[in-house]
Amino acid sequence: MSSEAAQRKKAENKFQAFSEALEGGALQQVRKMLNALHPAEIAHLLESLPPPERNVLWELVDPEDDGEVLLHVNDDVRADLIRSMKKEELVAATEGLDLDDLADLLRDLPDAVIGEVLHSMDAQHRRRLEAVLAYPEDTAGGLMNTDTITVRGDVTLDVVLRYLRLRGELPELTDSLIVVNRFDRYLGVLPLTDLLTSSPELTVAEVMDRSVEAIDANLSAEEVAKIFEDRDLVSAAVVDENGALLGRITIDDVVDVIREEARQSLMGMAGLQEDEDLFAPVWKKAQNRWPWLAINLVTAFVASRIISAFEHTIGQLVALAALMPIVAAVGGNTGNQTVALIVRALALGQVTPRNALRLLMKEAGVSLLNGVVWGSVVGMFAYMFYHDMMLAIVMGSALVLNLLIAALAGVLIPLTLRGLGRDPALGSSILLTATTDSMGFLVFLGLATIFLI
Amino acid sequence: MSSEAAQRKKAENKFQAFSEALEGGALQQVRKMLNALHPAEIAHLLESLPPPERNVLWELVDPEDDGEVLLHVNDDVRADLIRSMKKEELVAATEGLDLDDLADLLRDLPDAVIGEVLHSMDAQHRRRLEAVLAYPEDTAGGLMNTDTITVRGDVTLDVVLRYLRLRGELPELTDSLIVVNRFDRYLGVLPLTDLLTSSPELTVAEVMDRSVEAIDANLSAEEVAKIFEDRDLVSAAVVDENGALLGRITIDDVVDVIREEARQSLMGMAGLQEDEDLFAPVWKKAQNRWPWLAINLVTAFVASRIISAFEHTIGQLVALAALMPIVAAVGGNTGNQTVALIVRALALGQVTPRNALRLLMKEAGVSLLNGVVWGSVVGMFAYMFYHDMMLAIVMGSALVLNLLIAALAGVLIPLTLRGLGRDPALGSSILLTATTDSMGFLVFLGLATIFLI
Repeated sequence: MSSEAAQRKKAENKFQAFSEALEGGALQQVRKMLNALHPAEIAHLLESLPPPERNVLWELVDPEDDGEVLLHVNDDVRADLIRSMKKEELVAATEGLDLDDLADLLRDLPDAVIGEVLHSMDAQHRRRLEAVLAYPEDTAGGLMNTDTITVRGDVTLDVVLRYLRLRGELPELTDSLIVVNRFDRYLGVLPLTDLLTSSPELTVAEVMDRSVEAIDANLSAEEVAKIFEDRDLVSAAVVDENGALLGRITIDDVVDVIREEARQSLMGMAGLQEDEDLFAPVWKKAQNRWPWLAINLVTAFVASRIISAFEHTIGQLVALAALMPIVAAVGGNTGNQTVALIVRALALGQVTPRNALRLLMKEAGVSLLNGVVWGSVVGMFAYMFYHDMMLAIVMGSALVLNLLIAALAGVLIPLTLRGLGRDPALGSSILLTATTDSMGFLVFLGLATIFLI
Repeated sequence: MSSEAAQRKKAENKFQAFSEALEGGALQQVRKMLNALHPAEIAHLLESLPPPERNVLWELVDPEDDGEVLLHVNDDVRADLIRSMKKEELVAATEGLDLDDLADLLRDLPDAVIGEVLHSMDAQHRRRLEAVLAYPEDTAGGLMNTDTITVRGDVTLDVVLRYLRLRGELPELTDSLIVVNRFDRYLGVLPLTDLLTSSPELTVAEVMDRSVEAIDANLSAEEVAKIFEDRDLVSAAVVDENGALLGRITIDDVVDVIREEARQSLMGMAGLQEDEDLFAPVWKKAQNRWPWLAINLVTAFVASRIISAFEHTIGQLVALAALMPIVAAVGGNTGNQTVALIVRALALGQVTPRNALRLLMKEAGVSLLNGVVWGSVVGMFAYMFYHDMMLAIVMGSALVLNLLIAALAGVLIPLTLRGLGRDPALGSSILLTATTDSMGFLVFLGLATIFLI
C-alpha cells in the first residue's frame, strides 16, 4: 500500500472509530479521542457525519475549541451548528480567536451575539476589530490581523531584543517586525532572522529590509495569494491608501484562500455551491442544484427544438438519429479542453487583446487537425455500419465543422464572461456544451438534409 | 473598476508593454523592464508569449535568474527553454538554487548536465542532494531542503543566540531551530519567537516545543500540504523511518503543491495534461488531447449503437429523436454535481465504507426529488409540443430513472476509481457522462418501445 493510501486509510479508520464509538454510546471515550484532535480535523469529522451524530459530537467538543472548529467547517454546517448553540455559548466561542478569524466568524453570528461580543471588548480591541470589519471578507483588509509588532528605525537591535524579552510571547507566525516612522507609516520589515544574526549595536534602519512592499488593504484576496506565492512570504504588512499601517496578513490565511479558490472552481464548474453539506436535508440539497439544472434544461430544450426542425430528414434516414450524438459529444469534449486552457490562462493574466487572436488561431488549428484525423475515423466507422459513402462524408465533415465551432466557442465564451465581469470558471463549461450540442445537431442534420435527402 | 479587475488590468498592460517593446526591437528597454520583475512573473510572461518572442525574451533574462525562472514555468515550456540552452548555461543556471529546487530541476536536465553539476559540488553538498533525489518528487523527501539548523537540548538559549550571531545569515523561511539528540534523532523545535522572548539562562530543553511532530519522508506531498494547512506551519522537520533528521519542508513549497494540485484537477477534469503550453505547435497540442478524445469517441459510439438498436422505434415516432438528448443531458449534469461532491469528500478523507451507503441514499433521494419536479416540467413541455400524453409520461419517467442512475453512478464511479488506486478527479466526469448518455438513451427509447409503439 502506498504511503498516501495508508494515510487516507488512517483518516478513514479514525472516522470509522468515531462513528462506532458514537453509536455504541461510549461518550467518554469519544470525548477523549476528540480532544486529541486538531480543530481542523474535528471540523472535517463533523462534516462527514449525518446531522444527528454530528450534533452529539458537537456537544462533546471542548468549548475552548468551539470557535476554531466553527471557522474550519463549511458554511452550511457552520450555520447548522450556530443554530444549535445558545447565545452565551456563542459569545464564549469567540474568545481567544485571532482578530481576522473573529471578524470572519462574527459575520455569521446573530446580531445579538455580535453586540454582546463588541460590548465585552476593551476600546482598543474593539477599534481594531472594527477596522477589520470595515473591509470585505475577501480583501487584504478582511484577511488581516492587527496584532503587529512595530519598531522604529532609529533604535538599536539591542533595544529591540530587550523589548521583545520584556514583552514576552509574540503573535503566531511572526517572522518579522514591522518598521514604521513616528506617524505609523510603513517603512519596511526587520526579519527575526536578521535580528538574531546581526550585531546588536546596529540600528534597525541599518538592518531592515526596505525592498518588501506593504499590501494595500483594498487588494483582493486572490491577488494577495499571488503575491505571497510569488515572493515566498510568511507575513506581510497591510496599509491604507496613505501608507499608514493597519495590520498584517499571515500565510495560514493565504493558504486557506488558495484552497477555497480551488474548491470553488472545482465545485463551481459542476454547478454546485462550494459549501454544500454532504448530509444536508434532501430538499435543501435538491434546491442547491436547481439553478444550473434549470439552465441545463433550457439549453437542452433548444437543442431538442433544433433536432425537431429536422424530423422530416430523420424520418427518411433514421441512422442520423443514432449518429448525431457523436458529433455533439466530441465537440463538447474538445471545446471543454479549450475552455480549461483559457480559464487557466485568464487566471494567470496571460491573455491580452494582443495574443487572444493568436490563441484562437492555435486552437482552431488544433481543431482542424483533430477534426481531419478523428473525422476520418468516425466517417470510416459510419461507413462500416451503414455502407453509405455519402453519409460517412457528411458525418466526417460535420465533425470537422463542430470541432471548429468548439474551438471558437471555447476561446470566446470565457473571454466574454470575463469581459462582462463574471468568473469564467463558473458558466463557461455549461455554455460551451450548450453551443456544441446545438450546433453539432444543426450542422450534421443540416448537411444531411442538403446532401442525403 | 474593482481592485481585482484593476490588478488584472495592470498585469495585462505589463504583458502588452513587453510584447510591444519586443516587436519594436527596443531590447535594452525590455531587458531593464524584465530585470525589475520577480522570477515567477518572468515565468508567467514567458508562458504567455509565442515561441519566437519567448526565445528572444529568454535570452534577455539575467543568467542569475535562469534557474528560478525555469522552476516556475510549466513542464512544456521548461523543456523548450532547456533545449535552447548550452550545457554551460544549464550548469550555471543550477547555481544558487535551494537543494529541493535543484533536485526538481535536475530531474528535467540532460544526463551530461546532471553529471557536471554533481561533479562540481563538494562531497557534503552532493550527499545531501542525493538524499533528496532518493525520494520521489511528490513526497515529503522530494520536497525537503537539507539546510536545517539543529541545536541540542542541553545548551542554554544564550549559547544558541551567540552561535546564530557567529553563524550569520539563516536559511530562508527559518521560523524555528530543530532540536536533536546526539544521534541526530528529532526531538522537537525551538521557535525563533520563543528564543527571542525567553530568558537566555534557560536551556533549549526547557523552552522547546515537543508537541510538533516531524514528517515522515515517505509521506505524499498531498498529505504534507494537509498537515501544513491544518496546523498552520511555516516549516516542519522531515525524518526517516527511524526518526533521524533528514531535512525540512518550508511553506513556500507547500503552497506550490496546493496550487499545482488545484490546477491539475481543473485541467485533468477536462482531459488535458496539466502543463500544456499555450503556444505549443498545433500537432503537439492536438496529440496532447488525443487520449481523452479517443475515450470519448468510444463511449459516444456505444451510445450511438444503443440508439441504433431502436431505429425501428424512432422510425415510427421521430419525436423521440428530438427528445432523447434532453434525458441524456440532464442526467449528465446532475451526475456531475454528485461526482464533484464525492470527489471533494474523498479528497478530505470524509468517505468511509460506513457512510458511503448513506451518501448514496442521500444522493438518490435528491435525484428522486429533482426527477419528480423536473420530470413533470419536461413532461409538460413534451405534451405542449407533441400533444401526446403517453409520450409525456414516458419522457418524465425516463428522466426520473436516468437521474437515479446518475446519482448511483456519481457516487460509485469515483469510489471505484479510488478503490483501484486512481485519482477520482481525473476519469470520473467522462465515465459518468458516458453512463448517463447511454443509459438515458436506453431507458427513454426502451420505455418508448414498450408503451408507445
